[in-house]
Amino acid sequence: MPVPLSEAQVAIVGLGLMGGSLAAALSARRACRRIVGIARRPSTLRTALALRIIHQGETDLAAGVREADLVVLATPVRDILARIAEIGPLLKPGCVLLDVGSTKRAICQAMEALPPHVQPIGAHPMCGKETSGLAMAEPDLYQDRVFVLSPLERTAPEALALAEEMVRAVGARPLVLDPARHDALVAAISHLPYLLSIALVLSAERLAEGDALLWALAASGFRDTSRLAATNVEMMLDILITNREPILAALRTAQGELATLAELLAQQDFSALQAKLEAARQRRMEVFP
Amino acid sequence: MPVPLSEAQVAIVGLGLMGGSLAAALSARRACRRIVGIARRPSTLRTALALRIIHQGETDLAAGVREADLVVLATPVRDILARIAEIGPLLKPGCVLLDVGSTKRAICQAMEALPPHVQPIGAHPMCGKETSGLAMAEPDLYQDRVFVLSPLERTAPEALALAEEMVRAVGARPLVLDPARHDALVAAISHLPYLLSIALVLSAERLAEGDALLWALAASGFRDTSRLAATNVEMMLDILITNREPILAALRTAQGELATLAELLAQQDFSALQAKLEAARQRRMEVFP
Repeated sequence: MPVPLSEAQVAIVGLGLMGGSLAAALSARRACRRIVGIARRPSTLRTALALRIIHQGETDLAAGVREADLVVLATPVRDILARIAEIGPLLKPGCVLLDVGSTKRAICQAMEALPPHVQPIGAHPMCGKETSGLAMAEPDLYQDRVFVLSPLERTAPEALALAEEMVRAVGARPLVLDPARHDALVAAISHLPYLLSIALVLSAERLAEGDALLWALAASGFRDTSRLAATNVEMMLDILITNREPILAALRTAQGELATLAELLAQQDFSALQAKLEAARQRRMEVFP
Repeated sequence: MPVPLSEAQVAIVGLGLMGGSLAAALSARRACRRIVGIARRPSTLRTALALRIIHQGETDLAAGVREADLVVLATPVRDILARIAEIGPLLKPGCVLLDVGSTKRAICQAMEALPPHVQPIGAHPMCGKETSGLAMAEPDLYQDRVFVLSPLERTAPEALALAEEMVRAVGARPLVLDPARHDALVAAISHLPYLLSIALVLSAERLAEGDALLWALAASGFRDTSRLAATNVEMMLDILITNREPILAALRTAQGELATLAELLAQQDFSALQAKLEAARQRRMEVFP
């Protein structure tokens, strides 16, 4: 049986934006007994200790997770996959293992191979930022956000309950979701916007070859629509690799919509074009009032 | 010869976000002698008078512009075109006629037909917002923005000087630009982002048909990339109609970039994909540090 969160030792592997903010949120709310941070670089651990968001810092994974009741993997997706492969024998019996990677199918599949004494749960808090790193971490990052949880069939209800307790402790709302369904949804609402943002910047780059003044005129509209293009590439590449099929499906849909818009404009069918623009505006205003 | 701005009566036709903010900026800085606002609805004029951003309000165009030294047309592009066709005989000799429409070729072409006693200049301040209306107006909207000016060949240097004085008075930076060049540039940095934003919302709409949970998961990335889809449709339709060819060219470029990204992902050519993502990220961070 897992202990209640208040008595738990939590180990967070990776102290970037997500892991650092999780440590900050848990420590600000004194939600657990002890927080151990695991990071590659000693300087990251020193910073986290100075910020008082962890009680102990370790560069060695085994040393950091040995006593943990709850371990959270908060590195890019492919690093999470590598950690899952090695972490099983390092964890004590009943330890709940969570990750906060952006795709869930590949990760939950890898979690199936964990030894039976581990309680694995895939997770994904919906609070992306184009910034990264501990310097951008903030205790309120998870406030009011949806925090997806994907327990495995083998995961004990008590383990899920501990994860839900942690999610609520950092101010987020737990939502249990099947990994494949999660991946299809984030392909549409997160990975597609990223690729459209990338396509916008690459298009402007190409069009600027004819007129370098272009960048000087770029205003707030371009800034917002291209914001995601500044996202950490290593992180996004892991996402593209581990969520390829759903992203390709979302891309095909967007290519179709873009082709329709271009077609209507080329044919000067302005009433059909207007109907499309109105429908999109209506929907956007409903989703973000 | 036009009077200096401090002695000028300025008439602003249309008191939406752009016209209202211009009135607010000029009045806050006491930059001109008198500001007359022209709007269709008396309630708009009453609001503008109550906000003390205009000295006088008129629903009748002729009455509003009769004494003006500088007239600014601040309505959607096709309304500007209609006003240009009728306004010539209503203006006093030497009157400088400016517009703040989002496309410049069609407008500057229409301005060619104005009677010789009018001094026409196309203009476009680069400070779009997805909001509209007088309620959203603010005196600092133009602060530090590029304010494109497209004088006609016939425009007197003194008329351009008055326009530049007004631009600087509201805190913006004048940039003299050929109308065709302006239109090609804004097609890439303003109208293309709008259509990508529309395509994103329409794609999500389509993908949500299979799973309505999609909208509940949409987070900040989707919000920013789709923000422009909330822009006033009447305004955008005018832009699409009057800047069709450059927008189609920008759309074709974006379709090409999107197809390349999809192709690399489908073929699992992750090193080429990574190079594209890195190039876009680099450029985005240079343009908006």
